Amino acid sequence: MALDFDNLVFKSPPWLNCKAPDSDVVLSCRVRLARNLRDTPFPNRAANTVLQQIFRQVETAYSSVDFLENALFLDMGDLSNTEHQILAERHVISPEFVMKKIPTGLVLDETDRLSLMVNEEDHLRIQALESGFRLEELWDRAEQIDRQLGSVLEYAFSEELGFLTACPTNTGTGLRVSFFVHLPALAMMERLDSVLRNKPPSGLSVRGFYGEGSDVVGHLYQISNQFTLGWTEWRILEDIEETAVEIIEQERAARQELLEEDRIHLENRVFRSIGILERAKIMSSYEFIEHFSTLKLGILTGLLPKIDHQTLNDLLVQTQPEHIQKIAGRGMKPLERDIFRMEFIRSRLNF
Amino acid sequence: MALDFDNLVFKSPPWLNCKAPDSDVVLSCRVRLARNLRDTPFPNRAANTVLQQIFRQVETAYSSVDFLENALFLDMGDLSNTEHQILAERHVISPEFVMKKIPTGLVLDETDRLSLMVNEEDHLRIQALESGFRLEELWDRAEQIDRQLGSVLEYAFSEELGFLTACPTNTGTGLRVSFFVHLPALAMMERLDSVLRNKPPSGLSVRGFYGEGSDVVGHLYQISNQFTLGWTEWRILEDIEETAVEIIEQERAARQELLEEDRIHLENRVFRSIGILERAKIMSSYEFIEHFSTLKLGILTGLLPKIDHQTLNDLLVQTQPEHIQKIAGRGMKPLERDIFRMEFIRSRLNF
Repeated sequence: MALDFDNLVFKSPPWLNCKAPDSDVVLSCRVRLARNLRDTPFPNRAANTVLQQIFRQVETAYSSVDFLENALFLDMGDLSNTEHQILAERHVISPEFVMKKIPTGLVLDETDRLSLMVNEEDHLRIQALESGFRLEELWDRAEQIDRQLGSVLEYAFSEELGFLTACPTNTGTGLRVSFFVHLPALAMMERLDSVLRNKPPSGLSVRGFYGEGSDVVGHLYQISNQFTLGWTEWRILEDIEETAVEIIEQERAARQELLEEDRIHLENRVFRSIGILERAKIMSSYEFIEHFSTLKLGILTGLLPKIDHQTLNDLLVQTQPEHIQKIAGRGMKPLERDIFRMEFIRSRLNF
Repeated sequence: MALDFDNLVFKSPPWLNCKAPDSDVVLSCRVRLARNLRDTPFPNRAANTVLQQIFRQVETAYSSVDFLENALFLDMGDLSNTEHQILAERHVISPEFVMKKIPTGLVLDETDRLSLMVNEEDHLRIQALESGFRLEELWDRAEQIDRQLGSVLEYAFSEELGFLTACPTNTGTGLRVSFFVHLPALAMMERLDSVLRNKPPSGLSVRGFYGEGSDVVGHLYQISNQFTLGWTEWRILEDIEETAVEIIEQERAARQELLEEDRIHLENRVFRSIGILERAKIMSSYEFIEHFSTLKLGILTGLLPKIDHQTLNDLLVQTQPEHIQKIAGRGMKPLERDIFRMEFIRSRLNF
C-alpha cells in the first residue's frame, strides 16, 4: 500500500487540530521512545545486511500490534526526496530521517498519529503525536505499542542503565516527551526567559519550530524533557505535564493582560501582519510562520473574527516548500515558490 | 515680526518641492558659509556681552543685504523649545542651534530659503537652501549675501588660511556644499558603496537624514564636501556637482534596472509599505521615513499613481515629533503621538 501524497498535502495534519484541548497554547504533544535490538550494532555502525534484517523483522511484527493493525509499512527507499520532505514537513518523520543512505522503513497508522521509524538514529523510534495537550492518552498508546513490540522483538536493555541507545542522551527510558507551544504574548511581554527558567528535575530542553539547533520562529517552541536517565517514565511525564500547565496559564494571563492593558500594541502587531499579507507579492515559508503566529494570536484574542482558525493552522504546513510545490502541481524555483505561496495564502484567508 | 508656527507646520518646506529639477533623486541642496568676526572670541569662548554685541551688529546689518530686505530677525531666546524644534525639523536651523544657552539669533528670508544663524558654532552661518539640484543659483545667493555682509562686518580672515572658524574642519573657505539625495534603488541593489567610493579631490562626506553622526534611514543621504581648506570655492562646487551628476545617473539607471529586471521585488517592497500604512495602529517618525522612501520610489517608478507626490514629501517633515504635535494642536506622549501620526498619514494619502 502506498501513501497518496497528492491528497495528503491538502489534509490537516493531526497535530494541528485547532479544536483540541488547550490548543490555544499547546499546538501538539508528542511521546517518543527510542529502542534498539539486542546484540545488534546501532544503525550508524551496522552493515546494510543487518539493517535490512531489522527492516524485515519490523515489517513482520508491526501488524500484530494494537493501534497498528491497519498501519502502512513504507520502504523509505521507494519514496522520492520530495515525498521524504513532505513527511518531514508534516512532522511524521524527523529531518534526520530524510533520504538516509541505509535501509529505512516507516510504519504509519491510518490517522498519521502513530509511527515507527526503522533505522533512524536507533533501530526503532516509536512516536505518538496528538493535537493539543493530551499527554496521558499518548503515553498509553506509545507504551502499549512499545510493550507489544518488545514481546516480539528483543530490545537492548541493561539492568543498570535501562534501554540502550545510539546516543547516550537517550539511554535509560529512551523517552522524549515534548509539547509544541505557541507563546506570542509571553514573548511580546519579554517574560519568556523567566517562565522557562523554572526547570523540573528531569530538565527542560527548548527548541525552535524546525527542531534541534533551529532558531525560534513565530514564537513556536518545542519543549521537552532533557534527561532520559535517572527518572522513571512517570516522573518525566509528570514533570513535563506540570511545566506545560504552568506555561499555559502564564501565556493565557499574558494574553489577557495584553488585551486589557496594551490593546493598541497588540492590534498594531496583528493588523500590520494583515496589511502585509494583503499586499505583499513574495513570501518565504519562514516569514509566513511569523505571520501565522501573529494571526493566531489575533484570532485567539478575538481581533480577527473573519479568519478561520483551522485554515490558518493548515497553512503552517501547506506553505512549507515541498507542500507548496505539491499543491501547485509543479516544481518551482525559490522565487516562483515565494510568489505562488503568497497568492495561495491570500486565496485561503479572509481578512 | 514673528513667525506663525501654527501655519508654518502645514506649509511645504521649500527644500521638498517635488517638481524641482532632478528632484527624482536630489531632494535638495544647500550651501553653507561659516564666518566669524575679527578679533572676537568664537561663540564657545566668548562672554555673553560679546555675543550680545554680535547679535546686535547682525540685527542692524542684515536688512541692507540683497535677498534679505524682507527677512525676519528672530531672537532665538524668545522662542519656545517647541518652536526651536520645529525650525530644526524644517532644516532651517541645525540641531546644535536648538536651545543654546547663549544669545542666538536667526535671520530668515520670507521664502525660508535663506538664513543666517547668529552665534551657532561660528558667529555667522550663512545658509542657502533649495529643492532639487540647483547649486549655482544657491551659490550666487550665498556668495552675494556673504560679500555684502562682509562689507559691513569685518570677518576674521588670514591670508594664509582663509576664513577662520571655531572648528578647524571649516577653516579656509568655510564652505559646505551638500545635497540631500534619495538612493533607494542603489541601496536595494547593494551598489551604494561602489558609487560612493568615487570621491572627488575635495573629499566626500556622507551622513544620514538627521545630520552628523546619525544613522542612515530611508535611503536618504546628505552628501557634502569633506575639505574646506586647500581648494577654491569653485573647485569644491565643481567637484560636488560632478559627484551629484554621477550619483543621479547611477540611481536612475538602478531604478530602471529594477523595473525591468526585478519588478516583482520592487512591487513586493512598495506594496508591503502600503499594506502596513493601511493597517498599522502605531508609527514612529523614524519608521515613517522608511515608508516615505519606499513610497517615493513607488511613485517615481509609476507603481503608485494614486499617491500625490507633494503630499508625501510634506509628510516627511509633518510627521516629525514637534510638527505632529503642532498639527494635533496639543502636546502628546510618545505613544499617543505615534497613534495620531498613523491616523494623520492615512488621512493624507490615497493608496
